[in-house]
Amino acid sequence: MNTHAPQQRPQRVLIVTAHPEPRSLTAALADFAVDRLRAAGHEVRVSDLYAMKWHAAIDADDFPDHPADTRLEVLAAQGGATRAGRLAADLAEEQEKLRWADAVVLQFPLWWFSVPAVLKGWIDRVLTFGFAHGPDVPPPYSEGALGGKRALLAVSVGARESAFSDRGAHGPLADLLFPLQHGVFWFTGMAALEPFAVYGSASLPEEEFAAAAEAYGRRLDGLFTEQPVPFRRLDGGDYGRTDMRLREGLERPGTTGLGLHLR
Amino acid sequence: MNTHAPQQRPQRVLIVTAHPEPRSLTAALADFAVDRLRAAGHEVRVSDLYAMKWHAAIDADDFPDHPADTRLEVLAAQGGATRAGRLAADLAEEQEKLRWADAVVLQFPLWWFSVPAVLKGWIDRVLTFGFAHGPDVPPPYSEGALGGKRALLAVSVGARESAFSDRGAHGPLADLLFPLQHGVFWFTGMAALEPFAVYGSASLPEEEFAAAAEAYGRRLDGLFTEQPVPFRRLDGGDYGRTDMRLREGLERPGTTGLGLHLR
Repeated sequence: MNTHAPQQRPQRVLIVTAHPEPRSLTAALADFAVDRLRAAGHEVRVSDLYAMKWHAAIDADDFPDHPADTRLEVLAAQGGATRAGRLAADLAEEQEKLRWADAVVLQFPLWWFSVPAVLKGWIDRVLTFGFAHGPDVPPPYSEGALGGKRALLAVSVGARESAFSDRGAHGPLADLLFPLQHGVFWFTGMAALEPFAVYGSASLPEEEFAAAAEAYGRRLDGLFTEQPVPFRRLDGGDYGRTDMRLREGLERPGTTGLGLHLR
Repeated sequence: MNTHAPQQRPQRVLIVTAHPEPRSLTAALADFAVDRLRAAGHEVRVSDLYAMKWHAAIDADDFPDHPADTRLEVLAAQGGATRAGRLAADLAEEQEKLRWADAVVLQFPLWWFSVPAVLKGWIDRVLTFGFAHGPDVPPPYSEGALGGKRALLAVSVGARESAFSDRGAHGPLADLLFPLQHGVFWFTGMAALEPFAVYGSASLPEEEFAAAAEAYGRRLDGLFTEQPVPFRRLDGGDYGRTDMRLREGLERPGTTGLGLHLR
């Protein structure tokens, strides 16, 4: 008996999806992911933000105990309500799904080089101070509720791939998604995988869907085994403790830009 | 008489602001900007998205003529409704403000390394295909409704500046904001200025507000005279027409990452 066999318990995956049209490519890819992951023995839950009529904007309603006549300081209000277990019910439910999950997949169309507003609103509202980050969640943040969970961006891109390549006019997709990959996932201690992208999605011929789905399927098959993007650790000594700047001389000569933050 | 004197007609500025708390730093900076610009003789309008209860998510309600039983293809629906002048009233009103404006200021707190969801929803919904970009808006897009207008991001950042510097752990602010500076402004033909940022905004002492406002004031004074960020032109021959990739050898040796797209 091989005592080093990988853990075989079913893993739990939360898919958060954001498109107003149930017959969209985004919806089809989300459905495909659910089937593929369940066929592999995983448990899957889905937060379909449009179907849920997800409220996008943080406001005082997120914090039922917040006195109406008091200035709303968002981080402080999030922290207090999170500690007290007094967040709005829709937020609390999403946080419970995140606690349950071993991996999170965000499925969305690239709108204006980022997530649709409703998905940004899920990030803004659910990943509260005190839950996903903050002083109760010690650096490198990986001890927070999300620490160690795997995270995958699965994105449909209307334009052609070359425009998002190393020298593409829109910038490399990895750089455009850095605020999510590093800003959201790394910051909350999650292990970000390379994004999965379907390009040319504005007019994807029916016959190309199968190929796109199969490529997606291979990525989903590796959801728990792929090597994550090797972002540096904040507590690994690479960054100054006070200034949070990368120490000089750690990068390979010639590395600049966002690539500095890769080991 | 100097016939080469700069044009002195009052310029028109639209400020779009997004914070749930009217007593926030964001609101104070927006109020300051209104006063400063008006004192300089400019006309100013404000879209206070929280006060307007701005709906963030694109959905079929954006397109009143869209048949309920038909698949919603977002770009096509935006294009059709824009051409027909049949967009939802809240969108149409924001587009009218944009047509009116000579410059646009987006005033917001940096939440999860990007704009708050409600402001992303303003971008998603207002900058429709056929209005801000698209085949009726020929490349380099600068002939669109927004072409040539000036654009300034004015952002409050909770953390310290060093974490957003060239080697900062969160990535340089210019790179984090590239999806807005280049993805939104450049793509729609606007002239993006360097962002204005107030750091440490989570706990800005009262006595430092005056200094932050004065620094902001100097930027606002240059709103119509500052040199914009020198992004390359799409029609200038720097990019391939089909692949939209930057031609080899145009950059200064050693330039990599998003800096490639600067002249």
